[in-house]
Formats: sequence, C-alpha cells, structure tokens
Amino acid sequence: MSELPAGSVIGIVGGGQLGRMLSVAASRLGFRCHIFEPSENPPAGQVAEYVTTAAYDDHDALRKFAESVDVITYEFENIPTEALDVLQALRPIRPGREALRVSQDRLIEKGFLQDLGLKTAPFADITDAASLEAALAEIGAPAILKTRRFGYDGKGQARIMTPDDAAGALADMAGAPAILEGFVNFTHEVSVIAARGLNGEVVCFDPGENVHEGGILRTTTVPANLTPMQRMDAGLLAGKILNALDYVGVMGVELFVTPQGLIVNEVAPRVHNSGHWTQNGCTTDQFEQHIRAVVGWPLGEGQRYADVVMENLIGDDLDKLPGYAKEPNTAIHLYGKADVKAGRKMGHVNRIVKD
Amino acid sequence: MSELPAGSVIGIVGGGQLGRMLSVAASRLGFRCHIFEPSENPPAGQVAEYVTTAAYDDHDALRKFAESVDVITYEFENIPTEALDVLQALRPIRPGREALRVSQDRLIEKGFLQDLGLKTAPFADITDAASLEAALAEIGAPAILKTRRFGYDGKGQARIMTPDDAAGALADMAGAPAILEGFVNFTHEVSVIAARGLNGEVVCFDPGENVHEGGILRTTTVPANLTPMQRMDAGLLAGKILNALDYVGVMGVELFVTPQGLIVNEVAPRVHNSGHWTQNGCTTDQFEQHIRAVVGWPLGEGQRYADVVMENLIGDDLDKLPGYAKEPNTAIHLYGKADVKAGRKMGHVNRIVKD
Repeated sequence: MSELPAGSVIGIVGGGQLGRMLSVAASRLGFRCHIFEPSENPPAGQVAEYVTTAAYDDHDALRKFAESVDVITYEFENIPTEALDVLQALRPIRPGREALRVSQDRLIEKGFLQDLGLKTAPFADITDAASLEAALAEIGAPAILKTRRFGYDGKGQARIMTPDDAAGALADMAGAPAILEGFVNFTHEVSVIAARGLNGEVVCFDPGENVHEGGILRTTTVPANLTPMQRMDAGLLAGKILNALDYVGVMGVELFVTPQGLIVNEVAPRVHNSGHWTQNGCTTDQFEQHIRAVVGWPLGEGQRYADVVMENLIGDDLDKLPGYAKEPNTAIHLYGKADVKAGRKMGHVNRIVKD
Repeated sequence: MSELPAGSVIGIVGGGQLGRMLSVAASRLGFRCHIFEPSENPPAGQVAEYVTTAAYDDHDALRKFAESVDVITYEFENIPTEALDVLQALRPIRPGREALRVSQDRLIEKGFLQDLGLKTAPFADITDAASLEAALAEIGAPAILKTRRFGYDGKGQARIMTPDDAAGALADMAGAPAILEGFVNFTHEVSVIAARGLNGEVVCFDPGENVHEGGILRTTTVPANLTPMQRMDAGLLAGKILNALDYVGVMGVELFVTPQGLIVNEVAPRVHNSGHWTQNGCTTDQFEQHIRAVVGWPLGEGQRYADVVMENLIGDDLDKLPGYAKEPNTAIHLYGKADVKAGRKMGHVNRIVKD
C-alpha cells in the first residue's frame, strides 16, 4: 500500500508546532521522524525521535539529515533554495519544488493563480517609487504593499491608505522586492485545507471561517458561513491548484468571500493553522492526512463529524488555561514552548460546539 | 490550576505502546516525557524527549531518572518493589503504591475487592498440592489456576477442567505462589475505564464490551450490551475502588456480566487496552485523562460522542493494514514496533460506527 514501509523515517524541515503535530501524526501511523531546525530545543524535538540542530546553510548537516531519512517534508515554505537543492539531490521532497517556487513569492503565486483562471486581488510588481506610483494610480488606495518573499503573520506588510503613505510603505520594505495588492471588499475569510495523494486523489476538508487579529489568526469556525455553491467552489478551486502543481501533501488555501465569488488570498504548501480544528472534528486530521500523502498511503476521508471552533492561544492567552481545562468538549493542544512572548502562538483549543 | 507547571517532565516507567500513547498525550498538554525501560528502542522512545535504557535493578539509573523528572507514573503494574522504593524516595509516584500493592497480587486484590463488598469469582490461596485439592473440593471444577503475580495476556494460567488436571496445572506454576479461581458463568465481559483526580474527583468512561481470543483482547465495543442499571453499577463500583485506594490516575476495571450482577475480574492500575476506543470517541481520551490526573489538572469529562469498535492488530494482522487504511471512519494507531511476532500487539484501529 505504502511507498514507504512501516518504521521508515520522515524528515521534517522546521521544528515548530506544525512539525510537532506532524511528528505525532506520523508516529501514530508507525513512522519515525527526524526534525531539521536551526533553533535550539524546537517544540517538535520533544516528540520526534531524531533532531538535527543546524543552520540552513550548513550543507554537511543537510546532507547527513537527508541521508538518514526516507522522504522529506516541511512545516514552512520559506526554506532557502540552496538548502532545497542539497536535500533534493538525496531524497524526494514532498510537496515538491514547484509548490515551493510558486508559494515562496507572492508575485509568482498571484500570476500562477490567474493563469489557472482563479480570481485574486488586483496586484502589481513594485521595484521602485515610480512603479509604486503607477500601480497606485491603476489599483487605487487603500492598498497593501508586501514583500514578495518571507512574509507571514502580517510581517513584511505596510498599508497604504492614501498615496501619501506610499513613500513610508516602500521604506518599510527595506529594499526587498515587493508587490502591491489592492484591497478586496470581502465579507469574511475562509480557508480550505485540501490534500492530494501520491496517486493524484484529492480530498478536501470542510472550509473553515477565519477571524484574524493584528495579522494573526485568532479563530477558525466550522462550518463556515458559505452557500452550498460557494462550498463546492472552494473545493473545486483547491483541487485545481493541487493538480496544477502535481502536489503531494496538504495545502491551505485562504479565500476571501465576496458578492462576486471567492477570491484566492494566499496558498500555503503545508498544514495550516486554520486546519487545526480537524484534530477534533475528523477521524483523519490534517497532520495525518499530510503524512498519508507524503508516504504514499491512501488519503483519509475529509468528513467532518462535529461543529468546531478553534481558538489560538497567543502569548499570555495561556493564562486562560485553567478555565479552559475545566470546559467540557474542549480539547487543549499546547506546543511545549518554554518562553511566552507577545504574538507567539503557544497552543490552541478546539471547542466542539455540536456533535 | 496544575500542580506542575507547563514544561514539567513526567517520568513514565515502561516504554511500550501504553507509555507511547501516554507520552503523546502529555506532549499535547505541554509536558515533556522521560521513559524508563529495560529493553532497547522502546516504542515510547520514538515520541518521548528522554529515554533511559536500564534494568529495574539498576538503582543508579533509577535515581538519575527520578531526579530528572517532576512526577512518576507507569504503564504497567509489575514494577519490582525495590525499584519503586528507590523512585518513591525521590519523587511522587501516581497512581500510588497501595494501588500497585493490591493489583500486583491476585490474592490480595481479590481480598481487597471482597472487603469493599464487591463480587469476585470464588478463590483460594494455593501453596501446594494439598491446598489445591482442598480448594477444588470447595470451589469445584472447572476452575483456573493462576500465579498470584506477574501474569498478563493469559500467561501464568492453567485451566483445570477436572480434578485430574490439578497436578499438571500446579506444575505449570513452577513453584510460584498461586490462586485458584472458580469459573464464573458470565454472558459477556465489559470494562470500565475510570479516573480519579488529585483532588478526588472521579470520572468514568462509558463501559466497553470486550472479546478475547487466546487470552488476548481482540475487540472492545462501545456502547456495551448493558442495562442502564448495570451501566450505573459499573461506574459506582469503579468509583468505590478508586476512592478506597486514594487513587490518582486512570484505572481499568474488568467486569463479568452475570444474571446475578457484575463480578469484578481484574483491576489494572493504569491505562488499559480496552480504553483505546476513547482516542476516537471522546474529547479527552484515557491517556490524556491519566496525564491530567497525574499532573493535577482538572479531569476531562468522559462523555462519548460516537459508537466505536476498537480492534487490536496482533502479529500479522498488520497485513490487513492496506485495506483498513482505505476504510472511511477508521482511525489507525500503530506502535512503531520493528519486529512482528505472533501474539504481539502491533497497533489497533478504532472504527467509528455511528457519530
């Protein structure tokens, strides 16, 4: 059944909470995990059999890591290209390089989505003040200037409410290649967590509705407020993206819901914070689904058996834990991070609101 | 809330599948685990942060282990008394020594249960051929001769169908202290997985109905075939046992269902194979429940949200995996054991038969 026999070792690049939960899911299916992570004492290291602590430019460490595993996956998309080259020469990387190439660069991603016939926010490549001025004239303000690469959780972004903000926003980019995105007039944001197996089968989880605060995901609620038609559209467009990339694994697709249809905001080639609800709402959660894809198992079905609200525990939200631990129907998931910092994701809770 | 702060280390004695699943549950609540296990490469070691490989008579290793953790629990009850003495001098052991003393010895356990007013099979202390003959005269055949200590999964047991079998059965005990138990005329076996918190609160999971083959648990089905009165009785008697032992943690109580009421077969002072269904039928499963008790968290509620059939994967049952992986509503749990052996528990599946 599986391309990889039981007991095979899965290499996971990145040792944060996503790597941690992937590692647990892999162990449930009888696989062993090796984490590669530059920081000391990564959350995933507490639950994985092997950990390599080394920088992404340490090619010797990368080679040894690759040679010790049977397949490589990752918990975040911003892995340096040269590190990927080293790894790929030795072991298969799933999801593959094309997914990383596309998702690592907002400009390439937007072009890719448009080529597939999907709707995105209006956008323009920004290289200097002149191109920004021209783009603002076309797209209009308010708009948002973002670095093309390495942005997450609201980092590397600057809002332009009026053309007067343009110079300051461009300065915020610190010379990094950037993209201007027009504001989308959306009613709410949803995301689809979708998976594609090694054999090409596609399975989608029910879309969740996301609420952000300060650029960080606060809650995801299933079911999302969507018409049956929108729900179907969401699944179809996710499948289109997965197939176009010959993708293997789980992907998170963020969508804006507008009266004119669903607009693709962003694609993450990995398990996604907005899919954490699946841990307590589905028999196969997003982490196991990803592992099943990566090792060549059949995918689990995505059927949802409960209504769930996922709430992130950010920074000193941890103080709420004593109360949460007493709540019925509330599952707590902590990440084992030693230091509480403002804006840091420390864990999440899944509240089952209806079986 | 918790007696132990997040990030505290839980020492787990025993590195098999129960220790493995306890370790995963502990990590979900933000705790780290240290496994103590005599065998090399224990299943729990693949998912725990620390592993000590040493014998139970290695007192130095036991001391170092105890000093490195904040609290100690265990996955099996047959820990040598001297090892427990070493550990207890340094850190709290939960569940406590009294539960181990009682459950390590079938004769003491039966007496304890009778003192609580609970029903057990008729039994007698067997020290030699004469006491066996006398016991058979009183209890009658068929009966079953068991070693008082260190029996599990049908080991250390011999059936006596007629008095002629007595000598052979006694020889099978190889001189170990033994107990004769009369056969109970039961319709089926159920077990209650119950938990008691550090503050004395008691929570029971819904009883499961067990089917054994060759002395090894084959399936557990919830709901069990019980009247509402029997279900209530099961919970009440489990609570009685927990309170009498001032117990902290999860306990498995095996019960025979007879027309004359519930008869207690055996008590296991730990998470129990017949409670594995809780992983896919409850928000807080038996492993997390045990960890919550051990660290002093409030217990989760035991409410069941689905009908589940748990099936053990024993030996080459693993060959069925490709088919099982394709089944909807089937959760697979493998233990990461390298060698497949006849009678060895390799994993289990939880089939959700009704949400």
